Amino acid sequence: MDREEFCVRRELFDLDDDVIYLDGNSLGAPPRAVAARVAEVVRVQWGRRLIRSWSEGWWEAPQRIGDRIARLVGAAPGQVVVGDSTSVNIFKAMMAAVRGSSGGEIVVDAGTFPTDGYIASSVASLTGLRIRAASPSSLDLSEDTAVVLLNHVDYRTGELYDMARLTEEAHAVGARIVWDLCHSVGVLPIELDALGVDLAVGCTYKFLNGGPGSPAFIYVPTAGQASFENPLSGWHGHAAPFAMEPSYTPDPGVVRARVGTPDILSMLALDAALDVWDDVDLGELRTRGLELTALFRQQVEKLTSLEVITPDSEWRGNQISVRCPDAARVMDELIARNVIGDHRPPDVLRFGFAPLYVRDEDAVRAAEVLAEITR
Amino acid sequence: MDREEFCVRRELFDLDDDVIYLDGNSLGAPPRAVAARVAEVVRVQWGRRLIRSWSEGWWEAPQRIGDRIARLVGAAPGQVVVGDSTSVNIFKAMMAAVRGSSGGEIVVDAGTFPTDGYIASSVASLTGLRIRAASPSSLDLSEDTAVVLLNHVDYRTGELYDMARLTEEAHAVGARIVWDLCHSVGVLPIELDALGVDLAVGCTYKFLNGGPGSPAFIYVPTAGQASFENPLSGWHGHAAPFAMEPSYTPDPGVVRARVGTPDILSMLALDAALDVWDDVDLGELRTRGLELTALFRQQVEKLTSLEVITPDSEWRGNQISVRCPDAARVMDELIARNVIGDHRPPDVLRFGFAPLYVRDEDAVRAAEVLAEITR
Repeated sequence: MDREEFCVRRELFDLDDDVIYLDGNSLGAPPRAVAARVAEVVRVQWGRRLIRSWSEGWWEAPQRIGDRIARLVGAAPGQVVVGDSTSVNIFKAMMAAVRGSSGGEIVVDAGTFPTDGYIASSVASLTGLRIRAASPSSLDLSEDTAVVLLNHVDYRTGELYDMARLTEEAHAVGARIVWDLCHSVGVLPIELDALGVDLAVGCTYKFLNGGPGSPAFIYVPTAGQASFENPLSGWHGHAAPFAMEPSYTPDPGVVRARVGTPDILSMLALDAALDVWDDVDLGELRTRGLELTALFRQQVEKLTSLEVITPDSEWRGNQISVRCPDAARVMDELIARNVIGDHRPPDVLRFGFAPLYVRDEDAVRAAEVLAEITR
Repeated sequence: MDREEFCVRRELFDLDDDVIYLDGNSLGAPPRAVAARVAEVVRVQWGRRLIRSWSEGWWEAPQRIGDRIARLVGAAPGQVVVGDSTSVNIFKAMMAAVRGSSGGEIVVDAGTFPTDGYIASSVASLTGLRIRAASPSSLDLSEDTAVVLLNHVDYRTGELYDMARLTEEAHAVGARIVWDLCHSVGVLPIELDALGVDLAVGCTYKFLNGGPGSPAFIYVPTAGQASFENPLSGWHGHAAPFAMEPSYTPDPGVVRARVGTPDILSMLALDAALDVWDDVDLGELRTRGLELTALFRQQVEKLTSLEVITPDSEWRGNQISVRCPDAARVMDELIARNVIGDHRPPDVLRFGFAPLYVRDEDAVRAAEVLAEITR
């Protein structure tokens, strides 16, 4: 698949022609198929089939859609389920990782997206562990480290961390590692199974385009399923949910990571959104992502005096972050001119490049508009 | 509002004429307004406004819609937020209720819907408390009771419990009480504020018709908000979420009960669904619910020899449960004849009566079909 083939994919998205959408790292654009699918779910599945739809596909949707995502994160089927928010899944993963571990500390990357750190703190408080923030370049792990929680891509800088090396580093001291894939799924090939990752979570509304607040996912590898203890032991994770037994017996497999009744409209919107991934080669996607971000960087450095803080190496996600005083106002002006990115405090402009719908000319034009505004 | 006015409301729902839908206690029927609203959310809010929609109504939706539900549960504004599943909200409520309590046991009603008991067990295990199942008619509370978790309506029998008396009973020994309103919200007037309830949760996809898996709600009264400690301390509950601070400072109000990014499609479908409640008088609704369930009971007792296990008093929800050997097969036959209820193990047929769209003739005809099948 070459550049032209990727560009053709923009037709699969319901995006206005004059919009340069560079915020797919926050909320992906809507694939065209979603609107019709959601209408069908409301009018036919809910309206005509009513309660029967639960046994006609709804109940199993979290694991069926989980398997679709599994391919994108290098996981064999039966190890990913979809449901709940990323924060809730981080809680499940961290609680499960801490239990049965003997270390006394949780390590979180210092630049973590806030919710990861907040949830990890709650887990530390509930389990009596200490929490420590550290840079992935010097985690300083020890045998006292119980669990390491890392973001695969830094949400502010766009830096990509080395999953292979850091997973090995955690395992070398007997710690477990939980990866947050929010900013890397749908960006590059990920190899959870091959790298022996203990647990992972990710969201589906960024590069996977599942829609606002579409449910997150959790990866529990087969080998870890029997010992995965879900603190949110809701009935959807039960081995026999409709037996309505008084005591909780978890499903033997990944289904034990489910909790309560999933949000079917959001879930099946995601299902429709995933269709655009069916024939995407992740290696080619990665190449296009690097091309687009390189092009934008080059243009920004040529046309402006702003500092690009995203690493100038392959250790980056599909994002270019630019340091800019008055970032909020500059982004407002960019958006007013149909170049849509976002900003993060105190002074970072973020531009996401989703190769499925962002074109070379978008990257060039966005840099031009940025230069005009900041000159 | 008289019976005719209630019957007119069926027009607000997208239900086939020949369907007798008596499973609104499991999945409410779709209000007609939902399909158009969801289409607008996908095509306009997501498709055209993209990320901007977060600051154009999405972010505040959980508390805005919470306030709409507040009216239905006797709560002043600013005490209810919508989001996550019922199971997740039970976890939040129970963890928050247990912390800061000195008792050693959690008491759960013996007939609880399974997920409540499962989650309460997890909370007990995490906090080192014991868990005890007891009948609401003899809870046997003591000063050692930390928290009582009760279902307002029993999901199997349809029995309604006395919220005023049981709340008083818990408070008399210094225990906190958490009410599960899944089967009572949208059924009868509830007076959370007036009764001094400590915490409550409920779902929105049964009598509120929010759609399959629409998000649940949690009630945290004003007086209890400052001490409400959310174990799921996600960034949406932060006092300043976009400051992206490294440490968690909860919002001063009910927003602290939020966790992660809410499922906007399901959330705004619920918002549209709630429109049908705007001019419903809950007292009149209750009267109609009692009429419908009385009529169905009378017909079942006249036409069949089956035992109705729902209390023959006002202590019932909008549900009639019938003991029936071979309940699964009988329900399949009912559904094949367009009388849609459900069954619960081992031998209970359940029929829900949502006065907004169930008519007297539906209750009569359903009993006739049941009699024909079981004669």
